[in-house]
Amino acid sequence: MSKVAAIIGGGVIGGGWAARFLLNGWDVRVFDPDPQAERKIGEVLANARHALPGLSDVALPEEGRLSFHGSIAEAVEGAAWIQESVPERLDLKHKTFAEIQAACGADAFIGSSTSGFKPSELQEGATNPGQIFVAHPFNPVYLLPLIEIVATPETPTERLEELRALLVGLGLYPLMVRKEIDAHIADRFLEAVWREALWLVKDGVATTEEIDNAIRYGFGIRWAQMGLFETYRVAGGEAGMKHFMAQFGPALKWPWTKLMDVPEFTDELVDLIAGQSDEQSGAYSIRQLERIRDDNLVAMMRALKAQDWGAGALLNAHDATLRAGTDLDGRAVDGLAPGAVVTLRRAVPPDWADYNGHMNEARYLDAFCAATDRFMELVGCDSDYIAAGMSYFTAETHIRHLGEVHLGQKIEVRTQMLLGEGKKLHLYHEMRAGEDLVATGEHFLLHVDLSTRRPCDPGPEVVTGLALVAAAQSDLTWPEGAGRAIRRPG
Amino acid sequence: MSKVAAIIGGGVIGGGWAARFLLNGWDVRVFDPDPQAERKIGEVLANARHALPGLSDVALPEEGRLSFHGSIAEAVEGAAWIQESVPERLDLKHKTFAEIQAACGADAFIGSSTSGFKPSELQEGATNPGQIFVAHPFNPVYLLPLIEIVATPETPTERLEELRALLVGLGLYPLMVRKEIDAHIADRFLEAVWREALWLVKDGVATTEEIDNAIRYGFGIRWAQMGLFETYRVAGGEAGMKHFMAQFGPALKWPWTKLMDVPEFTDELVDLIAGQSDEQSGAYSIRQLERIRDDNLVAMMRALKAQDWGAGALLNAHDATLRAGTDLDGRAVDGLAPGAVVTLRRAVPPDWADYNGHMNEARYLDAFCAATDRFMELVGCDSDYIAAGMSYFTAETHIRHLGEVHLGQKIEVRTQMLLGEGKKLHLYHEMRAGEDLVATGEHFLLHVDLSTRRPCDPGPEVVTGLALVAAAQSDLTWPEGAGRAIRRPG
Repeated sequence: MSKVAAIIGGGVIGGGWAARFLLNGWDVRVFDPDPQAERKIGEVLANARHALPGLSDVALPEEGRLSFHGSIAEAVEGAAWIQESVPERLDLKHKTFAEIQAACGADAFIGSSTSGFKPSELQEGATNPGQIFVAHPFNPVYLLPLIEIVATPETPTERLEELRALLVGLGLYPLMVRKEIDAHIADRFLEAVWREALWLVKDGVATTEEIDNAIRYGFGIRWAQMGLFETYRVAGGEAGMKHFMAQFGPALKWPWTKLMDVPEFTDELVDLIAGQSDEQSGAYSIRQLERIRDDNLVAMMRALKAQDWGAGALLNAHDATLRAGTDLDGRAVDGLAPGAVVTLRRAVPPDWADYNGHMNEARYLDAFCAATDRFMELVGCDSDYIAAGMSYFTAETHIRHLGEVHLGQKIEVRTQMLLGEGKKLHLYHEMRAGEDLVATGEHFLLHVDLSTRRPCDPGPEVVTGLALVAAAQSDLTWPEGAGRAIRRPG
Repeated sequence: MSKVAAIIGGGVIGGGWAARFLLNGWDVRVFDPDPQAERKIGEVLANARHALPGLSDVALPEEGRLSFHGSIAEAVEGAAWIQESVPERLDLKHKTFAEIQAACGADAFIGSSTSGFKPSELQEGATNPGQIFVAHPFNPVYLLPLIEIVATPETPTERLEELRALLVGLGLYPLMVRKEIDAHIADRFLEAVWREALWLVKDGVATTEEIDNAIRYGFGIRWAQMGLFETYRVAGGEAGMKHFMAQFGPALKWPWTKLMDVPEFTDELVDLIAGQSDEQSGAYSIRQLERIRDDNLVAMMRALKAQDWGAGALLNAHDATLRAGTDLDGRAVDGLAPGAVVTLRRAVPPDWADYNGHMNEARYLDAFCAATDRFMELVGCDSDYIAAGMSYFTAETHIRHLGEVHLGQKIEVRTQMLLGEGKKLHLYHEMRAGEDLVATGEHFLLHVDLSTRRPCDPGPEVVTGLALVAAAQSDLTWPEGAGRAIRRPG
């Protein structure tokens, strides 16, 4: 099979398909009569190149070749996959398929990005109907794995298996839809929510922003990792899916949504759903599912903290209220107690632990970096100072592991400044869990000008801060674990 | 104000509220006639203690005291916040509120966890109606920030502001709902999707598992960070929200969902929504929003990779197809080329970079750890070997930063084994971006028995693997950067 894809219709969706193929090593041929198509696809590609390659923990294949073509016939010739993403008008789609089929190979796959049309509608009047099917992606196509595949009996089973494997090879998740239906599966949910949301805005119950917050601070995060049914199975608790349905069954008749055309709530329906739910999630106990859900939620919310967005931004704001511009015992730099300064106190989160609950090796450096950041803040190298153009860069790090730490344990880091003169900053962190010294981190940093990326002397506020720390720590002796190398064997 | 909360009705929701208060330093008094209540709440608390403290980057306050009480009167006395989470029957709720108000302080807040009842319904017949309001949480209550607050005009504005601030202090996001409506906001969406999903299962279009996958591999991940409207604003591309609405407006009449009671699609409605969307998201250009969305998606999907769940599990499976049980140039340990072995090739993902696009300090250790894991795999210390009870633990790490790396850049790590004898393994990684040496990582590891956590000699397959590497690298000399200490000042 040639690794050549033809993209008929650029735009956000077509461009996303182009990027998905191209970055996975396929050659991509684009046809789009829009004179802006090349620019628009270039912008989607720039986004894809920013985001997709690093999503993988291994290098992707070399990018394929991208070319633009003046006719559908030229674009589709020799292509193994042809993706149609023209506007949602059935007559236009029929005309496009006719042009494609006049020029493409008989064994080419022709997917349509349609949000709503059924494959039987797309195939009407086609010379080779079985070649055409719905391959409905989700924006951004270069990142989200879901592709809904809807075919008719015209497409042979072995062809479906072949196209499924092809999409899996692009890192996608093809969902093979059992029966055709308007808007397939996911868009039916989206359309219901959209219609419900329009009512809420129109009736003045909520603004667009309030609705978005109602989604992303609550069920949206849950749905990023478990869907509707698995989430409700867990919510049902020990009693499970049947219990959940019994509890909320009567509510089906209540005006909790404008969607009032509901299926009859029979024992048969309950059994059907509870049975499918058992098959889907029965390998895990409710307790296990709760833990999995919680660990997923914590990991995603902490990922959003690093992006300072959504629920992560809320958490950052809350953290900020729990600490002031002082050390963690509440002392400013001009009032420090003698000795090492407390620069970190926290619990080990689930996403820092391996499946046995031990804190991962690399997370010790996360903790030491947070301690270093805190120390810098304390001496005046805070976000304003950094925004003004200067900071410290770490040149060298030496970590010694002396014990183990577990998920949920409280850890504390105390920091001794070994040197803080001119451009140089030499820090020694000790991490304890209770009384146990579990790790040390020794760091050599250089003060830099962020525009030149070259070392320079710090500003007067930081010089003063460093001197105050030096004075508070003048009685401390050189720690036994500092200044050491990993021993050369033999 | 006393930091005392009364929880009336345990179970999953009441228990979640109890945990939220308790772990934020409040004393919590529980009333629930269920003889299993104490056990059930204990289980919710165990989950909360596992997940919540580490969500924060600073230590939470000391936990409050938890007590169980035999009557509502005893539980609510002196409580500042009383949360009702009894079953969804209005008569039962009225009875509960009467008992609460007979014993609680006049300035206590009485929130109801009801999913569907309006506050005016809850207040019927109450002695002090303005004290009662909806405070609707989302499961798990100890993790998800959203609380829908729905009050009637009976509750004074200053009381609403006071209760809002109280919830913010617990790390929550109180959404103040403008008008009461059945099922508030979020549950209207959930109920619409639930009803739509029941039809799909009943009609044999999809199974519960397929529906869940249609959610979590597509729009679910998007909704974890931007809601419906902001997502569609971005999808509208350069032309924005009005364009999006014009495109999908006609579809409102199409049978894309069973929810066919739709608002009239007037210019007024379009202007209302486009205006609110501008106010919500207008501070960012579409290009900026695309980048924010993509960085959020990558960060969350990579967080799910670490949990090996959902979209993350898909990505891990895909990564596995891109590498075999060989070095990254495809050579097994008995066919290695002379010299250092390639143990990592990848692009720097957005979640490894700071806001300026530079790779974060701690992520260098992530890269070196991945290289070490790969090296261990190559010599036979793979997942089967580890599952059988032995592995390597890192005792010491020394990182030198020699250059900078940027988001999207390809990095490569080559590994030299300095020592691989008995329990000891001494590795030296060099990280390059193109030809530039950007960092080195020196690691001293000990082979351990995972049950005793004590050093022991490796198994014969690993001994053989190490010998093969030693042979392939016998011509390498001691690297200039290894065996060095951070220099002691003065």
